Amino acid sequence: MIKVGIIGVGTVGTSVVNILKDNADVISARAGQDIVVKSGVVKNLSKDRGIDITLTDNVDDILNDPEIDIVVELMGGVEEPFEIVKRALKSGKAVVTANKALLAYHRYELQSLANDIAFEYEASVAGGIPIINALRDGLSANHIESIMGIMNGTCNYMLTKMANEGVSYDAILKEAQELGYAESDPTFDVGGFDAAHKLLILASIAYGIDAKPEDILIEGIENVTSDDIAFAKEFGYAIKLLGIAKKDGNEVELRVHACLISKDKMIAKIDGVMNGISVVGDKVGETLYYGPGAGGDATASAVVANIIDIARSGKSRPMLGFDKPLEGKLTLKATQDINSKYYIRINVSDRTGVLAKITKVFEENNISVETMLQRPATAASANLLFSTHIALEKDIQNMIKSIEALEFVNMTPVMIRIV
Amino acid sequence: MIKVGIIGVGTVGTSVVNILKDNADVISARAGQDIVVKSGVVKNLSKDRGIDITLTDNVDDILNDPEIDIVVELMGGVEEPFEIVKRALKSGKAVVTANKALLAYHRYELQSLANDIAFEYEASVAGGIPIINALRDGLSANHIESIMGIMNGTCNYMLTKMANEGVSYDAILKEAQELGYAESDPTFDVGGFDAAHKLLILASIAYGIDAKPEDILIEGIENVTSDDIAFAKEFGYAIKLLGIAKKDGNEVELRVHACLISKDKMIAKIDGVMNGISVVGDKVGETLYYGPGAGGDATASAVVANIIDIARSGKSRPMLGFDKPLEGKLTLKATQDINSKYYIRINVSDRTGVLAKITKVFEENNISVETMLQRPATAASANLLFSTHIALEKDIQNMIKSIEALEFVNMTPVMIRIV
Ligand SMILES: NC(=O)c1ccc[n+]([C@@H]2O[C@H](COP(=O)([O-])OP(=O)(O)OC[C@H]3O[C@@H](n4cnc5c(N)ncnc54)[C@H](OP(=O)(O)O)[C@@H]3O)[C@@H](O)[C@H]2O)c1
Ligand SMILES: NC(=O)c1ccc[n+]([C@@H]2O[C@H](COP(=O)([O-])OP(=O)(O)OC[C@H]3O[C@@H](n4cnc5c(N)ncnc54)[C@H](OP(=O)(O)O)[C@@H]3O)[C@@H](O)[C@H]2O)c1
Repeated sequence: MIKVGIIGVGTVGTSVVNILKDNADVISARAGQDIVVKSGVVKNLSKDRGIDITLTDNVDDILNDPEIDIVVELMGGVEEPFEIVKRALKSGKAVVTANKALLAYHRYELQSLANDIAFEYEASVAGGIPIINALRDGLSANHIESIMGIMNGTCNYMLTKMANEGVSYDAILKEAQELGYAESDPTFDVGGFDAAHKLLILASIAYGIDAKPEDILIEGIENVTSDDIAFAKEFGYAIKLLGIAKKDGNEVELRVHACLISKDKMIAKIDGVMNGISVVGDKVGETLYYGPGAGGDATASAVVANIIDIARSGKSRPMLGFDKPLEGKLTLKATQDINSKYYIRINVSDRTGVLAKITKVFEENNISVETMLQRPATAASANLLFSTHIALEKDIQNMIKSIEALEFVNMTPVMIRIV
Repeated sequence: MIKVGIIGVGTVGTSVVNILKDNADVISARAGQDIVVKSGVVKNLSKDRGIDITLTDNVDDILNDPEIDIVVELMGGVEEPFEIVKRALKSGKAVVTANKALLAYHRYELQSLANDIAFEYEASVAGGIPIINALRDGLSANHIESIMGIMNGTCNYMLTKMANEGVSYDAILKEAQELGYAESDPTFDVGGFDAAHKLLILASIAYGIDAKPEDILIEGIENVTSDDIAFAKEFGYAIKLLGIAKKDGNEVELRVHACLISKDKMIAKIDGVMNGISVVGDKVGETLYYGPGAGGDATASAVVANIIDIARSGKSRPMLGFDKPLEGKLTLKATQDINSKYYIRINVSDRTGVLAKITKVFEENNISVETMLQRPATAASANLLFSTHIALEKDIQNMIKSIEALEFVNMTPVMIRIV
């Protein structure tokens, strides 16, 4: 019999307790032994959680319990759970976590500390979708060429609603908060940070690359308007917040931002709160994984799968997918050197000569226009819509600064990358 | 160092050799050791395969070689590879195969023979998509409610082309053969047998259920016409060949047939030669896996992933997902008891009283009509299109027999199940 201690019995923790009970029949048959929760740690002991396990508010009760084989960390945070799981590993206990923030900062330290002890984290990326499993085991024969993921359900829900109903960003954010999809401080989701944490985890498995959120390009969806979504739709694109990891020679690009993506691509068809991750391998080609990225039960499904796996075989693979470092290690590409196609919308006062002045700025910054369209905005202003050929991030940034400074330009130009 | 022997160095076998060579850097870093092909077995030694491994035409050279750790069976067939992999297991060698036909018939015997030796078969279902991995490990915490898969690329290619271009079944089959998607005898693909083999494998992992192709409902796409695809499209449906496994109380339905499926469902959006499998778990909800279901490199990607996994950890999980039998075992539902909604098209001579007579036959067989539409077919005939409420398979079969016998009915009614 395997005994589990759960540190943090909130949304996900409660679901873990329930799944281990509700599905004990299949779980025991698949794991070859019974798996039981011995105890759980919470902050507030007086809260009713509708579950009948022993609760404590002292982590030592779990960390010092020699009967507990697996510590499941579901409390959230970064430094506090880091200290706790380090102690668990030191006392020889396997660890399972759903904590992407912890891993975004400390995955390599944890990998070396874990060493021969199992440390699993399937739920940390895309909730119920077994994407860690797919990338680390299922696609292990491949050089990974790219990963493109919709990894934040809140953002995808908001963008889908804006696309389908033309609602404004502010209205839909309020609705998402009322539905409990977005926190009262939604920055972590809509600012792209949550997706970035997940992207960093996947990038380690795909490329063996160590990077922190601070090192990579992270933009959110705060500046996406329903106008831009409508324009994108008209031209055959959807707008999605994507986490992108891409190999380019010996460099890897890591970035999170809103993207225009052709609506024929499978990933563009993923709507609402659902998540989906497309992975291109040099041998297998494109595979895609779709499902619920959050929610107590969906996330706990992944946590329990990790527990079953550890019950079956202890540690059966290297935590981050590499048993020894890759020779000719890949390095992180500087943000300024990223290249892409871009969608640019510039709102201008409607006078003669404007277009010539703007296209001159494009030219001065080495940006070549692929398509251009003018649309009236108000009686006195117009939207100029451009798509560019492949251009460099630094050139685009400079170009936008110059255009913004032109006196007939009414607002900071909107820039959305096209994939 | 892990040494591999490959029995069958054809399309997939050649790709396995190439991947182990081309991607030796990541493979060795992920597996923690080098993996090399020691030798391969073929029928025709004089054929040039563009690879430089030792070839023999005698399987004993691999089976009796004490240096070989893993036998990779890629020759195809059922009884001959069965004898060969049994011998490999008996001499303690791990086995990897892509052979769905072998597993459709002998997976339970192989599981008990393998016992503590690793026996892996990721490539046998949906080629490059790590669906075995997802179902057996990633979703192991769930009771599986249903599996619905597009698991034959040839059929999906044909149905997609018929839908997009209105081409006839015969014309598109000819094209698929010329492109090398369909064999010169395409029965195995278009008759649904290939998909059935794969479905049986998945059903064992999901439900622990033993069944053979002969035990389940298997229909192909031979009777799907571009007319029916066009009608389906008009009503918001796509037509796909699906393998379906569904739990209903203590029974499991297993069936392969063409389906009308709402075009809003993710699986309906999977076009061309691509495969996709939707799995619903009681806790996680729906997850879906998409990618290439065939092709040398894509299939070999899965074969090599299994080899890496064995190199990492030997046997880390039960072959078919269950370490001990499920209590209250599930049984196979009889085909006659399956229920579904149905699309029925009846071509009739256009005279008065016809509709009344037909709806009477529906009534006599307990079939309740949900929608009905009449469309002119030729000057003297009409198509009557029905969708039914949930009905029993046996009632539908009887109803079709009775309708076919009516003198004003011009052909066997078309019946396609709606999911
Ligand atoms: N919710 C999701 O859909 C989801 C999806 C993927 C990943 N995750 C990750 O899963 C983890 C848990 O998320 P959640 O949604 O379940 O969070 P939650 O509902 O806020 O639960 C957190 C739990 O941890 C306990 N806790 C917090 N700090 C503690 C401390 N210092 N000492 C003892 N107990 C403490 C809380 O106790 P009280 O109940 O007494 O306050 C609560 O039971 C997070 O890392 C999150 O990022 C969540
Ligand atoms: N091709 C795909 O896309 C795909 C996808 C998924 C699964 N699979 C499965 O993978 C397996 C292999 O498929 P494949 O397409 O690679 O087949 P293939 O191209 O026909 O290759 C079969 C190989 O086996 C050898 N062989 C056959 N019978 C033999 C015998 N009695 N003794 C020694 N060697 C023998 C053949 O030798 P010669 O070359 O000398 O004739 C050939 O090298 C099959 O089980 C298939 O169902 C294939």
